[in-house]
Amino acid sequence: MSNGATTDQRRARGDRTRQSILGIAVDLGSREGLEALTFGRLASDAAVSKSGLFAHFGSKENLQLATVEAAREVFIAEVVDAATQVEPGLPRLRATLEAWLSYFRRDVFPGGCFFQAASLEFDGRPGPVQDRVIEIMREWLALLEALARAAGPSAVSPEQLAFELNAIGMATNWQRQLLGDDRAVERAAEAFDRLISRSI
Amino acid sequence: MSNGATTDQRRARGDRTRQSILGIAVDLGSREGLEALTFGRLASDAAVSKSGLFAHFGSKENLQLATVEAAREVFIAEVVDAATQVEPGLPRLRATLEAWLSYFRRDVFPGGCFFQAASLEFDGRPGPVQDRVIEIMREWLALLEALARAAGPSAVSPEQLAFELNAIGMATNWQRQLLGDDRAVERAAEAFDRLISRSI
Repeated sequence: MSNGATTDQRRARGDRTRQSILGIAVDLGSREGLEALTFGRLASDAAVSKSGLFAHFGSKENLQLATVEAAREVFIAEVVDAATQVEPGLPRLRATLEAWLSYFRRDVFPGGCFFQAASLEFDGRPGPVQDRVIEIMREWLALLEALARAAGPSAVSPEQLAFELNAIGMATNWQRQLLGDDRAVERAAEAFDRLISRSI
Repeated sequence: MSNGATTDQRRARGDRTRQSILGIAVDLGSREGLEALTFGRLASDAAVSKSGLFAHFGSKENLQLATVEAAREVFIAEVVDAATQVEPGLPRLRATLEAWLSYFRRDVFPGGCFFQAASLEFDGRPGPVQDRVIEIMREWLALLEALARAAGPSAVSPEQLAFELNAIGMATNWQRQLLGDDRAVERAAEAFDRLISRSI
C-alpha cells in the first residue's frame, strides 16, 4: 500500500513537472516559433536537464506535438469552455467572440496567438506537426460555423460567417503583435458586432 | 569610350544577376521564411558561389532586407500599380481588391503571401528587418485607408474599413496556404462585396 501511494505521488509530481515544462514550451513557441523549441533551449528556460527532457519526449517532433496539445488546452479553457456556460444560440456565439477578444487583450500567450504563429510557421513543412495544427484550425473553424448556425437563420451562410469572424480575430492578433496596435481589439469588437447584427 | 561601354554592360549584367538571385530569394523566403535565407542555401538554389553572394550582400541581414524590398516591388507591381489605371474612388478600391485576390489566386509567391509570413516570423525579433516589414505593412494599411476614404462617404470609418478588408485578405492567404482551401478566394470576394456595398 505505501508503495502504491509512493508511486501515485511520484506520478502526480511527474505530471506537475510535465505541465510546468509544457507551459514554458508553449510560451517559447508563441514568442519564437516551434522550431526554436530545442531540448537545449527548453532545458535552459525550464531549468531542467536536457537528458531528462530527452528521456521524457524522445524527439523534437514529440516535444512540438506535446506543446501544440498543451496550447490547444489553454485555448479551449480560455475561449471555448467559458462560453459553454452561456445559453446556446446568439448569446453563446457572442460570448465566444468576447472570450476570444479577451484572450487577445490579456496576451494569454506572451508572443500572441500560438496557433496563428504555428500555422504560418508550418504551412510549408509537411509532417505530423503540420497535420495536427491543421486539424486544430479546422476544429476551430467548425466550432465557429456551428455557433453561427445555432445563432439563428442568417442572410450569410454559417461557413461564410465563420470565415469572416476568424479573419477579424486573426487580423487583431497580427496588428497587436506586429504593429503594437492597441485599438485592434476595439476594431474587432465593432466588426464582430456589425457582421452579426446585419447577418443574423 | 569602349571601356565605358564595357562597364555599362558589366553593370547591366550585374543588375540582371542580382534581380534573378533576389527572385529566387523571394521564393525561398515565401516558402520557408526569411530565416531559411542563408548564403549557403541561396547559393545552392541560385547556382552561384557563396563567396560571390557574400561579397555582394555582406551579411544575412542585408540579404534579408534586399529580399524584402524585392518582394515589395512584386506586390506593388501586381496589386497597387494595376489599380492606378482605374478611375479614382470606388472603382479603384474595387480594382485593388480584385488585383489582391488575383495575386492570391495565381500564387504570385509560391509559399503564399511573402509579407504575412515575414510579419509573423519577425513579430518577436526586433531589428532592421522587423522595422522594414512593419513600415511596409503600415504603408499597405494606409493605402487601403486612403482608397476607402476616396471611395466616398461611409457609414464605417476608412480606418475601420482598412482593418476589415486587410483581415479578409490575410485569412484568404492563410486558408489557402494552410488548409488548401480553394474556396477562400470566393469567400473573400463575397466578404469584400458585402462590406463595401453596405458601408460606402
